[in-house]
Amino acid sequence: MSMQLTFLGTGTSVGVPVIGCDCAVCRGPDPKDKRLRCSVHIQTPETAWVVDTGPDFRAQCLRGNIRRIDAAIFTHSHMDHVTGFDELRRFTVEDGHFMPIHATPECLAALERMFIHAFNGENRYRGYLKPFPKAIHGPFRLGGTTITPLPVQHGKVDTIGFIFERDGKKLCAYIPDCKTVLPDSMEALNGVDTLIIDALRHTPHPTHMNFEEALAVQREIRPRQTWFTHIQCEIMHALEDPRLPPGVNIAYDGLKLAWA
Amino acid sequence: MSMQLTFLGTGTSVGVPVIGCDCAVCRGPDPKDKRLRCSVHIQTPETAWVVDTGPDFRAQCLRGNIRRIDAAIFTHSHMDHVTGFDELRRFTVEDGHFMPIHATPECLAALERMFIHAFNGENRYRGYLKPFPKAIHGPFRLGGTTITPLPVQHGKVDTIGFIFERDGKKLCAYIPDCKTVLPDSMEALNGVDTLIIDALRHTPHPTHMNFEEALAVQREIRPRQTWFTHIQCEIMHALEDPRLPPGVNIAYDGLKLAWA
Repeated sequence: MSMQLTFLGTGTSVGVPVIGCDCAVCRGPDPKDKRLRCSVHIQTPETAWVVDTGPDFRAQCLRGNIRRIDAAIFTHSHMDHVTGFDELRRFTVEDGHFMPIHATPECLAALERMFIHAFNGENRYRGYLKPFPKAIHGPFRLGGTTITPLPVQHGKVDTIGFIFERDGKKLCAYIPDCKTVLPDSMEALNGVDTLIIDALRHTPHPTHMNFEEALAVQREIRPRQTWFTHIQCEIMHALEDPRLPPGVNIAYDGLKLAWA
Repeated sequence: MSMQLTFLGTGTSVGVPVIGCDCAVCRGPDPKDKRLRCSVHIQTPETAWVVDTGPDFRAQCLRGNIRRIDAAIFTHSHMDHVTGFDELRRFTVEDGHFMPIHATPECLAALERMFIHAFNGENRYRGYLKPFPKAIHGPFRLGGTTITPLPVQHGKVDTIGFIFERDGKKLCAYIPDCKTVLPDSMEALNGVDTLIIDALRHTPHPTHMNFEEALAVQREIRPRQTWFTHIQCEIMHALEDPRLPPGVNIAYDGLKLAWA
């Protein structure tokens, strides 16, 4: 196993079930329709990292029994991707252990504004988060993995996806929040084995792809497998998953993907 | 019933279980030892509000099937009390429905810094949180309840507790984060029916009361009932609750208190 990816969450910004919503999906029993906010944990033989730390980060770590995170990388600074940031503190309890935080300069600025107590150096108590900001300006490495940022369009905020590449193979692209994949990013996706992409619902949305838009990207890239994420309660897994083309499925919390 | 209080969470800043902790409490089966971050929901015949919106706020609303919140009030701006703030959006979905946010000026400034997208007036999308900041400078009213802020000492940050008073009766004081209750606040607590107070553990802590310190306040105030909250995993409910004096107990998530 060279890389394993675990979906910590596959839900839209308010999660599924939605507070106060009585729809069949929100009130239904299927665990595949219980969606915490979007995040993935990636384990390689050398190192482990998380992509985004949304509001459910603690619950996700407990559910997945996550004991090791060596770095955190971020797609963008929307609330459903960052408000769990401070809970990374449990992974920097050791003295002198700083957590590398990889994000665009705009996203780092938002994290520093929100979590000023962690970044300002004035609170070096044992148990407090000790972040080490690392601005993303292009591909970077975590252990033996090359991580290439993919600029995408997603409303007003600077947003990126990531390609994870090992031994020259593009194992996986992760693009959880996206309305349009820009041409250079489409070219970078060429040859990727696995595509994980924003597919909110059927109805169009101003800042997220719907199923039709996500399928258009899938048809152009032709990955071996495609997984939809960032799913809203309009989508019932048991009903919608069987209707997708071969090789395309709806991800769900806890799903693991592995590459040899 | 003139007032009902539900404990949405009774845990310390990292919750119980703690990520990565293998102690008997964190790994134990007792639901009373599963503690989300401190918050209470208060329902009166006229109105309902929540005190603090920590990281678990969505999970707490779903677990408690909370359908109505008319206002949010805050004790202080530490992460375990505010990072769920944006999830209040589900209670301001209706057009023109703004959520009153009662907090000290310092706490409001922290909320506005962290959740600038909600306060800056530029994001009036349906479904986005619409907060209406209300600075606490003294007693204020929500429906028929008079709420008196109680300044307390809790590390570097401005922190308050609250007394909830109806028809001239001080029904309940809620002080979840506190190292020292200042003399004026002790005097204000005189005659309170129910005291809910920070009691982290037995071991002393620089910014929280331990059991001994909380019991000293209880002995001076002599309320009818006292409930400890903000509990760390050093405390096993089944072991420690029976050892407390009569009228003093350890609160737990989901516990409801009611006043006639």
